[in-house]
Amino acid sequence: MDDRSKLLKFAGPPFRWDAVPVREYKTADARHKDVTRQTLLGEGTGEEPFNFVTRYFEIQPGGYSSLERHQHPHAVVVLRGRGRVILGERTFDIAPYDCVYVSPGVTHQFRATGGEPLGFLCMVDRVRDRPEVVNGPQKAKSRDSNRLGSH
Amino acid sequence: MDDRSKLLKFAGPPFRWDAVPVREYKTADARHKDVTRQTLLGEGTGEEPFNFVTRYFEIQPGGYSSLERHQHPHAVVVLRGRGRVILGERTFDIAPYDCVYVSPGVTHQFRATGGEPLGFLCMVDRVRDRPEVVNGPQKAKSRDSNRLGSH
Repeated sequence: MDDRSKLLKFAGPPFRWDAVPVREYKTADARHKDVTRQTLLGEGTGEEPFNFVTRYFEIQPGGYSSLERHQHPHAVVVLRGRGRVILGERTFDIAPYDCVYVSPGVTHQFRATGGEPLGFLCMVDRVRDRPEVVNGPQKAKSRDSNRLGSH
Repeated sequence: MDDRSKLLKFAGPPFRWDAVPVREYKTADARHKDVTRQTLLGEGTGEEPFNFVTRYFEIQPGGYSSLERHQHPHAVVVLRGRGRVILGERTFDIAPYDCVYVSPGVTHQFRATGGEPLGFLCMVDRVRDRPEVVNGPQKAKSRDSNRLGSH
């Protein structure tokens, strides 16, 4: 047995974990704004047994994720802040510990609506399809940079 | 497209979610003590696309989960309280937002060590092997009720 078990120590506030890089998205891309991602578990050496990945996203006040859709589902658990999620034709306000299920193919977007960042866990399959960015209120002009959308 | 997306509204404190049943474990079983489980996402009608299940466990002060092992990995994110986790031969103190990776086959146990409940998310594969309860400090006498161990 190869024991790769580990503790990933929380190093916040702000929301950071030991040895976990924070990936900042460029705000120049109009399809998302002020979003960072930290991949907590399910990637990297020794974590191959995971069939799913646990990530932490943070959106600064006024920021938003891409309006997008894909075939893999999302399991989201809010950890901090206030926000709004678009799920197809519906919109919901979200707050800490609310859970969101984004079912396959449903267009979705997260926005931070409060005075502090909106932070949430988002679990996805390790092997998953690429998101398709949808033209929406962010006035996305093309779909050629789906790679930037990571939900 | 069958849109089964949903918001699961947090209804706490205490840590409860709308329409999510709290499953209480019997304390008469010596292998775990004062543990409850709430399955948040990944089970039930409409959630078949999930390959993993998001559960919330809570252990009352002084309580503990079964000392057990299995081949499926755990991804754990602590949400509240203080505790201690056994990972094979090692022990770590845990606090909110710490993440724990329990790799396959590693004997593990969670204990609540503070004055409030230890609450954590625990994500697992939807299809997974049954835990094997390990004889340990809880003086488990037999292994015939693995079904009670749900980690």
